Amino acid sequence: MQHAVFEEVRMEGHLIDSGIMSEVMDDIIALGGEFETISFDVGRTNDDPSVCLLRVRAQTDAELDRILMQIQTHGAVASDPSDAKFVSATMDGVFPDGFYATTNMETEVRISGGWVHVANPEMDLGVLVDSVRCTAETIAMAEVREGDLLAVGHGGIRVHPHERPRDKQAFEFMSSAVSSEKPKAQVLHEVSRMLRDNREAGLDVIAVVGPAVVHTGAAHHLARIVELGYISVLFGGNAVATHDIESALYGTSLGVGLEDGIPTRGGHEHHLRAINTIRGCGSIAAAVEQGVLTKGLMYTLVKTGTPFVLAGSIRDDGPLPDVITDVIEAQNEMRAYAQNAGACLMLSTMLHSIATGNMLPASTTTVCVDINPAVVTKLADRGSWQTVGIVTDVGLFLEHLADSLEP
Amino acid sequence: MQHAVFEEVRMEGHLIDSGIMSEVMDDIIALGGEFETISFDVGRTNDDPSVCLLRVRAQTDAELDRILMQIQTHGAVASDPSDAKFVSATMDGVFPDGFYATTNMETEVRISGGWVHVANPEMDLGVLVDSVRCTAETIAMAEVREGDLLAVGHGGIRVHPHERPRDKQAFEFMSSAVSSEKPKAQVLHEVSRMLRDNREAGLDVIAVVGPAVVHTGAAHHLARIVELGYISVLFGGNAVATHDIESALYGTSLGVGLEDGIPTRGGHEHHLRAINTIRGCGSIAAAVEQGVLTKGLMYTLVKTGTPFVLAGSIRDDGPLPDVITDVIEAQNEMRAYAQNAGACLMLSTMLHSIATGNMLPASTTTVCVDINPAVVTKLADRGSWQTVGIVTDVGLFLEHLADSLEP
Amino acid sequence: MQHAVFEEVRMEGHLIDSGIMSEVMDDIIALGGEFETISFDVGRTNDDPSVCLLRVRAQTDAELDRILMQIQTHGAVASDPSDAKFVSATMDGVFPDGFYATTNMETEVRISGGWVHVANPEMDLGVLVDSVRCTAETIAMAEVREGDLLAVGHGGIRVHPHERPRDKQAFEFMSSAVSSEKPKAQVLHEVSRMLRDNREAGLDVIAVVGPAVVHTGAAHHLARIVELGYISVLFGGNAVATHDIESALYGTSLGVGLEDGIPTRGGHEHHLRAINTIRGCGSIAAAVEQGVLTKGLMYTLVKTGTPFVLAGSIRDDGPLPDVITDVIEAQNEMRAYAQNAGACLMLSTMLHSIATGNMLPASTTTVCVDINPAVVTKLADRGSWQTVGIVTDVGLFLEHLADSLEP
Amino acid sequence: MQHAVFEEVRMEGHLIDSGIMSEVMDDIIALGGEFETISFDVGRTNDDPSVCLLRVRAQTDAELDRILMQIQTHGAVASDPSDAKFVSATMDGVFPDGFYATTNMETEVRISGGWVHVANPEMDLGVLVDSVRCTAETIAMAEVREGDLLAVGHGGIRVHPHERPRDKQAFEFMSSAVSSEKPKAQVLHEVSRMLRDNREAGLDVIAVVGPAVVHTGAAHHLARIVELGYISVLFGGNAVATHDIESALYGTSLGVGLEDGIPTRGGHEHHLRAINTIRGCGSIAAAVEQGVLTKGLMYTLVKTGTPFVLAGSIRDDGPLPDVITDVIEAQNEMRAYAQNAGACLMLSTMLHSIATGNMLPASTTTVCVDINPAVVTKLADRGSWQTVGIVTDVGLFLEHLADSLEP
Repeated sequence: MQHAVFEEVRMEGHLIDSGIMSEVMDDIIALGGEFETISFDVGRTNDDPSVCLLRVRAQTDAELDRILMQIQTHGAVASDPSDAKFVSATMDGVFPDGFYATTNMETEVRISGGWVHVANPEMDLGVLVDSVRCTAETIAMAEVREGDLLAVGHGGIRVHPHERPRDKQAFEFMSSAVSSEKPKAQVLHEVSRMLRDNREAGLDVIAVVGPAVVHTGAAHHLARIVELGYISVLFGGNAVATHDIESALYGTSLGVGLEDGIPTRGGHEHHLRAINTIRGCGSIAAAVEQGVLTKGLMYTLVKTGTPFVLAGSIRDDGPLPDVITDVIEAQNEMRAYAQNAGACLMLSTMLHSIATGNMLPASTTTVCVDINPAVVTKLADRGSWQTVGIVTDVGLFLEHLADSLEP
Repeated sequence: MQHAVFEEVRMEGHLIDSGIMSEVMDDIIALGGEFETISFDVGRTNDDPSVCLLRVRAQTDAELDRILMQIQTHGAVASDPSDAKFVSATMDGVFPDGFYATTNMETEVRISGGWVHVANPEMDLGVLVDSVRCTAETIAMAEVREGDLLAVGHGGIRVHPHERPRDKQAFEFMSSAVSSEKPKAQVLHEVSRMLRDNREAGLDVIAVVGPAVVHTGAAHHLARIVELGYISVLFGGNAVATHDIESALYGTSLGVGLEDGIPTRGGHEHHLRAINTIRGCGSIAAAVEQGVLTKGLMYTLVKTGTPFVLAGSIRDDGPLPDVITDVIEAQNEMRAYAQNAGACLMLSTMLHSIATGNMLPASTTTVCVDINPAVVTKLADRGSWQTVGIVTDVGLFLEHLADSLEP
Repeated sequence: MQHAVFEEVRMEGHLIDSGIMSEVMDDIIALGGEFETISFDVGRTNDDPSVCLLRVRAQTDAELDRILMQIQTHGAVASDPSDAKFVSATMDGVFPDGFYATTNMETEVRISGGWVHVANPEMDLGVLVDSVRCTAETIAMAEVREGDLLAVGHGGIRVHPHERPRDKQAFEFMSSAVSSEKPKAQVLHEVSRMLRDNREAGLDVIAVVGPAVVHTGAAHHLARIVELGYISVLFGGNAVATHDIESALYGTSLGVGLEDGIPTRGGHEHHLRAINTIRGCGSIAAAVEQGVLTKGLMYTLVKTGTPFVLAGSIRDDGPLPDVITDVIEAQNEMRAYAQNAGACLMLSTMLHSIATGNMLPASTTTVCVDINPAVVTKLADRGSWQTVGIVTDVGLFLEHLADSLEP
Repeated sequence: MQHAVFEEVRMEGHLIDSGIMSEVMDDIIALGGEFETISFDVGRTNDDPSVCLLRVRAQTDAELDRILMQIQTHGAVASDPSDAKFVSATMDGVFPDGFYATTNMETEVRISGGWVHVANPEMDLGVLVDSVRCTAETIAMAEVREGDLLAVGHGGIRVHPHERPRDKQAFEFMSSAVSSEKPKAQVLHEVSRMLRDNREAGLDVIAVVGPAVVHTGAAHHLARIVELGYISVLFGGNAVATHDIESALYGTSLGVGLEDGIPTRGGHEHHLRAINTIRGCGSIAAAVEQGVLTKGLMYTLVKTGTPFVLAGSIRDDGPLPDVITDVIEAQNEMRAYAQNAGACLMLSTMLHSIATGNMLPASTTTVCVDINPAVVTKLADRGSWQTVGIVTDVGLFLEHLADSLEP
């Protein structure tokens, strides 16, 4: 069968060394198409960008459409682009058919012949347009209201893929595989430098924290980092806050003594009593005010005025009164912080880290620390060159990090 | 310092071979107490129970109290028991100070000199008493209302620890360690026999299901088991239902073709489109009625009238309209089924399985299947002799299980 | 500082879509060099090869040398190549300084102006040359004898990197990530087809087998595959052979009953008694002849005349008389088979699989099966497009595979 | 069928709280027997031992024999014991039929009415007797010579099971489960105290070391511990020594820079060149003497006169000239040290740690450190109360440990 229909697309950038060219070619073949290289001006040196003009062929219009939709996520744009198409939502909470699903990369939509930046890049959302003001932003499915104008198809939408910076990277070790078998001194140095850079630049840093931080006795090291002003907001769940408060009230975490690592007989229900106590106070902040909670990570957050978002989960006991039990509400709370973050530390929690990672723009520097290589691999695989995974003991890691951040 | 205060406790059962005696002695020493064996009538043969009278000594009343509280979870009761104490809750959602925290074992409270069964055994709850009707039941912290009468302390409360059945067990291989390196044929045979026994006995079976069941192509094998009437209710989250519906609508699961295992280019956002479609229909059942959803696991549940509970999580896209986004509401929905279950299959999901495990009485037969030994170890460690963990590929496991259940 | 010295290199092939071009550029920059693109003829369509002429610049001759050495492993050859250089070994078991260390890819050395194929491609060896006969072959360090002529430096050596076949691959699912969450039916189908193809083509297939194959009760499924003529040689250690023989003599594997999965009390030392028995017979084959060993995998190997290599390890009990306790001797035994293999199945053993993988040419189709994703990742990462990793239960996998190979 | 045959056995010790009583009862039932408690004098307090007299019944003499063989590993001895039986070996390297297979616990054999201590307790060996001198020792299968007198059956053999010390333990945290989620400060303190105690007591400490110690940049921290005199002998393989020497010669470990964690392009074959260089010198010690090797862990061992045993493995490149390529020879070398060790540190190597663990008496204090919980679980499960497993990053662990051991 003939590949009768075609369209010409243009790409520009470090196409070869970023692997973008190779991915585009793969996509075309995999989706049943063919390509011809119309022109390919290869940059002579490492600094010169390349420019490529490809003719993409397919057997049917639908097939061609599917191919163009896919390769536009790598930055391929029709050489002669039209405006983007918009359709009104007919129901609350439902996108129009054929809605454009976002990547987490910088994106523009073409409105009235001009390219308009899409605010708040985040993956797996829709693009909401204000055609009067000529503005565009991402929007979650649940937030759509009847009558909202949303982008459909792929025409007139341009993505700026993250090119791998060969010379200067947020982390020099970044391109190497995630492994427990790496020297850690340099890694710690780089993370510490990155946090200083963010603080100096006035950028927000999110810490996503799991209960292992408390169990390993590292909560007070993280509290030191909070006190030094390196953390802008903490994301977590009922467990991390409860175990931290349990350790403040009883000296145990899930019944295990934090001084000696020995399970306290009968200490198992300490976490329940801790939750009940805070519920009696009304909130964590109230417990601090009433002099009930006098130390620990949550105490430090309250005292330093550092905000936190505790999202509920189906396995929660209690929960603490500060926990947002409706998960969509919790997502919206988190999303507000995620879009402004310069960096994100993911510390030994898979669930909350995945949730946060889904909300982060590709440009956010992200550090994932976990002792389980499978978790690190999953989290670090965000299609971003700004993400590094570190397989190590989160307790010892935070102790070192806090030490290196002390003035 | 002298161990001046003491109390005598009585235990009865297979104290030595169940390890109960050893645990009680450990607890007393670990909590700083001492014990003397007043009498120990050892059963002469394997069938005879032992009876032991211990004098437990401590240095202070508070210490003695802590010890007695701990050892009562192993069935130790004061040899001369008093009535249980009850206190009214003074706030909604908060237990009284010193509330009794439940185990998941059969429990009785002493009211007016008589032992009253506590309905719905579940761990980490309180005990709500109706002193007029002389009834007692477990109650979650969030469900407490001002004025509710709740058990405090440990006096007058009696726990019946699960004794390990040496001769007849739900699973004969049960006492052996969880391992991927076990012959699987016999394991499958035992699980299949257990499911038949439950169906014959008219007991409910819960299936807790993670998305890996769909990704491995095993959803239709589980659907066969549902059709054969072996599953009473399915617990899961947005992911498993979404990927199953995605596979029904697009033939992919998270963009990966279920026939050939090859990622479909541009298939990544299929799951978003699947969610959007069902949201447009109103519910999964509505999508079946409208002829939109015509096959798959969720379709089979609707068609066979098998109920399901989809609990929300912070990482959900969408979510599907059937997902209960408030986690406490979702817990209550699940709890209603958990208390009546004869057995529970936990299939490749840690979060929902832990949530479910927390709700199950110790007597529920539980089978945990996961390819990750750490998950299986965590789930199978419920202090119950009715739980077995199987480290294997859930896809191949369900295929074999469905085959063996076919008439 | 100036990049004063330079050399021009030529590359040919699917440079962009195989990622080769990108890797070469990375290497040059990472080693402190620079490049200019002299010419780049991009293939117009997917079938046309590209040809690239690069000028590589460095600051010193030593630096330039290091760069050329590195990029020649991706197929970059001086545009005006000289003959390779050879130096005689001055000691047994020691290469000359600056020896050329091989890749596992097809390699040629230039002798008297002509390109000569290097026999037995295997990584991390030297290249031994017979300058009279104009032949070359790989040689292990320990095998070198004084006076042997060995290649040094990188000039006059040409590597043919494996280009990723975009359209036709040994395994279509190959490019997808290793995961336990893939549908297994298609994977099994492909492996089964690959084994048939190899048998028809008269190519050898190596099975590298760990003790988990016996523990999971799958040894007799592998024996069925041996009987059907799909396995040419088995590589393993003392453990797999011992546990197989233990199961034939006592019905247990490491003391665990293979019928019922229940540990046999007192069965722990069965493996010692099994080893002792075979030592008394003289060898495994002798035990078969004497009627002592009458079933199992090792029995099937002996009966079908299928060779096996059992390599010793420091943790061995006994060992069996057939185990080669000197590891260098065992390597040589394995190497003879490795070079002729069309395919290799690595079944739940890391140590022996790594050893075997090190010996295989990049062109050998390799299938790694293990329940541990970390092991699969490590084994599958051989820089070859002919390797696939499958995270699954080896017991259920072999049962399915044997069924699908039955005529 | 009747349980017609019986024998009376006696046990003494902390039978209940050590779980010994429970295990014996389990064994009897599992092997088809029955028991009657003739008498059971329970210790009144925690300090008093219990004494139990059991009548064990079986259906046949063979069955009774199997039961008695099994329960004697828990210390059960015939109440009226006879002498042990001895048989001469008829072939080199082969035990007599029915040979007694050892545990790693303190064992005695009854010769001419007296109990004789068996020297060098190690599991899975035989017991060699000198009937003239009335001495006994363990012996490996491969070491047996024709005419050697070896124990057979179980009569007249007495094992002293390790009782769990409830009050004083080598590690107080020991009884708690192996986990990455434990506070590490106390663990480090205990390990450090244990090493000091061993050095003061003049007991040997073995370090079993894997290549991850070098990859994580921790080799020089271990070298500091060696310099401080805390390590008596190092066990390892070709890999750890090669990568340490590679790092001394090239600054990389398997081609990865130890200062910066960045893979050195073209650094992959550094390890081959390192091996070749040492082979040229003749040995590691010769390389130190010749001024070729001037730093690193292996250098420190040579300079401090600390012995090391490098055992070969099938995956070795080279290997280094010091590597013992015959594994049985390597075992014998290691065994000599293992029997005199007061403690053993197992640092991120499964193969060599299992090999070493198999050789250690149950009384040797053992610390297993690995980032993989499955490895730690496997190593720590030696049926000894003196073993602790620590799931953590070996690099950060050794840095802390070295710091805490500095004077």
